[in-house]
Amino acid sequence: MPTLSARGLAVPPSPIRKLVPLADAAKARGVKVFHLNIGQPDIETPAVMRDALRSFDEKVVAYSPSGGTDALRRTLLDYYAGIGVPLSPDQLLVTTGGSEAIHFGMAAAMDPGDVILVPDPMYANYISLAAVLGVTIVPVPTKVEDGYRLPLDWEPYLTPKVKGVLLCNPSNPTGAVYSADELQAVVDFVIRHDLYLFADEVYREFVYEGPLPPSLLTVPALGDRLVVVDSLSKRYSLCGARVGCLVTRNAGIAAGAMRLAQARLSPPLFAQLLGSKATALAADYFDETRETYRRRRDIVVDALQAMPGVVVARPEGAFYCMARLPVDDAEAFARFMLESFSHEGHTTMVAPGGGFYAQEGRGRDEVRIAYVLDEGELRQAMECLRLGLEAYNNR
Amino acid sequence: MPTLSARGLAVPPSPIRKLVPLADAAKARGVKVFHLNIGQPDIETPAVMRDALRSFDEKVVAYSPSGGTDALRRTLLDYYAGIGVPLSPDQLLVTTGGSEAIHFGMAAAMDPGDVILVPDPMYANYISLAAVLGVTIVPVPTKVEDGYRLPLDWEPYLTPKVKGVLLCNPSNPTGAVYSADELQAVVDFVIRHDLYLFADEVYREFVYEGPLPPSLLTVPALGDRLVVVDSLSKRYSLCGARVGCLVTRNAGIAAGAMRLAQARLSPPLFAQLLGSKATALAADYFDETRETYRRRRDIVVDALQAMPGVVVARPEGAFYCMARLPVDDAEAFARFMLESFSHEGHTTMVAPGGGFYAQEGRGRDEVRIAYVLDEGELRQAMECLRLGLEAYNNR
Repeated sequence: MPTLSARGLAVPPSPIRKLVPLADAAKARGVKVFHLNIGQPDIETPAVMRDALRSFDEKVVAYSPSGGTDALRRTLLDYYAGIGVPLSPDQLLVTTGGSEAIHFGMAAAMDPGDVILVPDPMYANYISLAAVLGVTIVPVPTKVEDGYRLPLDWEPYLTPKVKGVLLCNPSNPTGAVYSADELQAVVDFVIRHDLYLFADEVYREFVYEGPLPPSLLTVPALGDRLVVVDSLSKRYSLCGARVGCLVTRNAGIAAGAMRLAQARLSPPLFAQLLGSKATALAADYFDETRETYRRRRDIVVDALQAMPGVVVARPEGAFYCMARLPVDDAEAFARFMLESFSHEGHTTMVAPGGGFYAQEGRGRDEVRIAYVLDEGELRQAMECLRLGLEAYNNR
Repeated sequence: MPTLSARGLAVPPSPIRKLVPLADAAKARGVKVFHLNIGQPDIETPAVMRDALRSFDEKVVAYSPSGGTDALRRTLLDYYAGIGVPLSPDQLLVTTGGSEAIHFGMAAAMDPGDVILVPDPMYANYISLAAVLGVTIVPVPTKVEDGYRLPLDWEPYLTPKVKGVLLCNPSNPTGAVYSADELQAVVDFVIRHDLYLFADEVYREFVYEGPLPPSLLTVPALGDRLVVVDSLSKRYSLCGARVGCLVTRNAGIAAGAMRLAQARLSPPLFAQLLGSKATALAADYFDETRETYRRRRDIVVDALQAMPGVVVARPEGAFYCMARLPVDDAEAFARFMLESFSHEGHTTMVAPGGGFYAQEGRGRDEVRIAYVLDEGELRQAMECLRLGLEAYNNR
């Protein structure tokens, strides 16, 4: 048989999804699985969006424009204006989720062998999306002990192949929200060396301490070096619809991304239909959600910190934390929880941490936890985790 | 500013979509534009699919499985069984349109610099999707004079870098349906040299002469060399929904495509919801559509053949034809039609042919025409085209 591609083989299985068959098997045995492995919020999709489906009365489900429907584009331009980011229409491209925005932005800016610096641990899919494009991720180590702070001096990471920095802020998977000083250090670095700054801000509203930090799009000095990745998935609990956007003032990147967008014809129509209703949401739409997640965060982090040997930083944003567990192999532990453990008919699914690190060998005793269930379920899930750790280490 | 990527710059603008701003401007001037530039059928999406939207009653628009919802996967497995192709579930992956299936298949099989042989002219987006991945397309010339027949001897195209052949059958953009002999020559070639055969069969049911040809999936000898790209867009008039699939018996390609699929989380949920209703369609669903397109084809081809200096082959399938026009520059002509011409308040938009050729310089006096409007509109569109050609050459 013909050989597989090296790049295809370099794409790792998703640490978020690869244990799903074990979860399915557990469910088939009658075990209820608390899914803390995936950032799938249980927050209801706004009714005004779901109702939009019922109002669809076209006879033909036709292609939409490659850059998005007029209605969604207006909604997104309004949203950005509302967060202090006036945009011209050609600076925004609607994408099939944030994933496609990352793919388009990276492909338009970077060639095979180009290096992108990414704080490690990182959103696991960056590793896969970069591998497909042959882009080299050089991890910038951050650690749980100081809450995953960024370096204030990026110069040691500069090499001739470095072409950009990719930040996720608030961070998936750590929950870190970067300070003005941390961000300024990155901004100075990319300007000094004329690099791209890719900013994944899909959790922009999910910040639990202090005021919402401004988008990097409000930093004029970044100019055409900035490429912002955004998604409606978490903001409006629209994960399954698949809609996001790419925002940049770099006309070359915008035009390149548009040519890539034309090659896939259009973003999904119904996702755009739902997303376009965001303007109908009340101004305080996020306040309640934010408060919900703040309480959930505290339940999870308090429970983790009470477990012997667990190390975790209290996240300031997003709805994840990374936790170091007192286990030899967090993936073996995650499998154990699905295959061999249950407590009162329940178990907890977590994502093995290794897959969130680009640096080989890191994260093997860590897991990523998404606090996306209600408070009662989270308490049960944490109790399962606590007992599971005991059982695993006594097995 | 940082440089753009070479690969991004190598992605051409879509010949199908790049003149859309001119069409919008014409419409703003009150001109009705007959869109023969894009394969957007006017056939109604089946009501059973549109009605499915109204029945959606989940409170959360959640991620679906990376490989597709169970309901759609069952529907597709049934569909394939119905065309004589029994599949195991791991041989089918649901994708975000056929475009993503091409991207996944190519990425899993081919590295930068690998060569794929593709009959020229070809579906324009192959050129873009290959450019993103650094895959080299080597065009295999076909020509209007013999109805775009394939070579029966592929050996002259073999070089050490050739790793596969990509066929679109029925062909977009030529409408050619390949004979058993033509296909056997390709099958023998890929088996002899252990190459991949990528088969884009999204127009499988759109064949106007003789019985429907069997899918290449019915050729056992191809084994794990075959990767089939499919889409529900044309078959069920679901273009805007964005749903298709990748089918292969190659376990390595299937696994690689699944890892790529995990990196984009899931295909669009509502597209899958609609697609899963295909099982509810009557057995003769395609018969009426096929008859509709056969009549449209004849209207368009008869009209084209009656125009002085126009060369066109009568297509056997899909809903496109390539036509050579008596003009110096078909793109300039297409622009002229939108910018400077109208007849009784109407004009016709066609796709310039050059963008459908990977071989530089070919197709400059050709256009692609999609016969996707009703018979009355097609007659008007052809009359506009006839008069537009006269006006262009007399300007």
